[in-house]
Amino acid sequence: MSDLTIWTLDWVPEGPRGFVRDLRLRWACEEAGLAYAVRTIRFEDRETNHLARQPFGQVPFLDDGGLKLFESGAALLHLARKSDALMPPDPAGEAETLQWTIAALNSIEMVSVPWWFLTICGDEDNKLTGWLQSRLDHMERVLSEREWLAAGRFTVADLLMADVLRVAKVRAFGDRPATEAYVARITDRPAFEKAYADQIDFFEAADAKRAPERP
Amino acid sequence: MSDLTIWTLDWVPEGPRGFVRDLRLRWACEEAGLAYAVRTIRFEDRETNHLARQPFGQVPFLDDGGLKLFESGAALLHLARKSDALMPPDPAGEAETLQWTIAALNSIEMVSVPWWFLTICGDEDNKLTGWLQSRLDHMERVLSEREWLAAGRFTVADLLMADVLRVAKVRAFGDRPATEAYVARITDRPAFEKAYADQIDFFEAADAKRAPERP
Repeated sequence: MSDLTIWTLDWVPEGPRGFVRDLRLRWACEEAGLAYAVRTIRFEDRETNHLARQPFGQVPFLDDGGLKLFESGAALLHLARKSDALMPPDPAGEAETLQWTIAALNSIEMVSVPWWFLTICGDEDNKLTGWLQSRLDHMERVLSEREWLAAGRFTVADLLMADVLRVAKVRAFGDRPATEAYVARITDRPAFEKAYADQIDFFEAADAKRAPERP
Repeated sequence: MSDLTIWTLDWVPEGPRGFVRDLRLRWACEEAGLAYAVRTIRFEDRETNHLARQPFGQVPFLDDGGLKLFESGAALLHLARKSDALMPPDPAGEAETLQWTIAALNSIEMVSVPWWFLTICGDEDNKLTGWLQSRLDHMERVLSEREWLAAGRFTVADLLMADVLRVAKVRAFGDRPATEAYVARITDRPAFEKAYADQIDFFEAADAKRAPERP
């Protein structure tokens, strides 16, 4: 039996709702049928109020019966070891899942998140654009040849890659039909839809509860 | 018995020598006492000549007795499961090693590599600077309080974080004595020194062997 707690913020503005990365862990737990609780740290002083739990002041982090993990990618790989629904247990399936999970973090998100950061700073056409386009071109080629990234089936690597790609504004760089179909297919899963709706509901409930205190 | 092959480029210019990421895998194998072979793909058409093995056209990738992995972070976590020298086998030690390995990839390198890319494009003072400084400040705080990142001992998380930090020009942003001491301490290990010297020698030998063909 697992005793899982996902830690996130107690409230966020509307903009990031549906994108806060506790969604990745909720989604993984839903795929695996793992029960979990959600606990929170305060939004207001979030940059300093939980550095002992998450050394960069971010969310989410996971508590698994006393065993603690930060970094959503690490928490996903930890959860994947608990359920064949997230990762096949054979060495080849595990290796494929691992490599594509890390690729989502270090080959796509390492370019897409800084690119996004520069665009919200006002540099819509910035020096990372060509690099991001190139990485997305590679993903389009891969996804035009297969349905799933690893082991011929859904894994946690698809969960993470689809989450990274849905944020990366794939469409901003021209038609990428295989990538768009992939993201649509993966986020069409009931586990994503439940996790997404749960996160939206969670922060809406926080609005109602805490509105008088918020500026 | 393992049958490990690390794949890298057959030659690189002087600039990247000592930084090509096959170094990470050589280093891990040296720490763990795992024998390995090195095989190569051609430098010239590297962006397209091995997409079937590494979908982004990069190196390194690992072959472990027929089991193939790309992404240096994934290969490191795979190697870590083969040797207690790289990761303690207990669940808590493994979780700590995993979270700090992913932190190196997704909390530091996700900012430091794009920052470096913008600087070599000529934007020395770019919009990622504040973000990178903040991440390095967090690392300085962590490293002022401990000798190793995970489990109170050297792990593959230190190997990767030290490699990420030595490239990140930590000193460019003011004094960070704990971080500098950490990078010096980790890269002072005989396994790093051997891996580093081996990579330098490897590309120098390629110079000698292939000079007539090179422009």
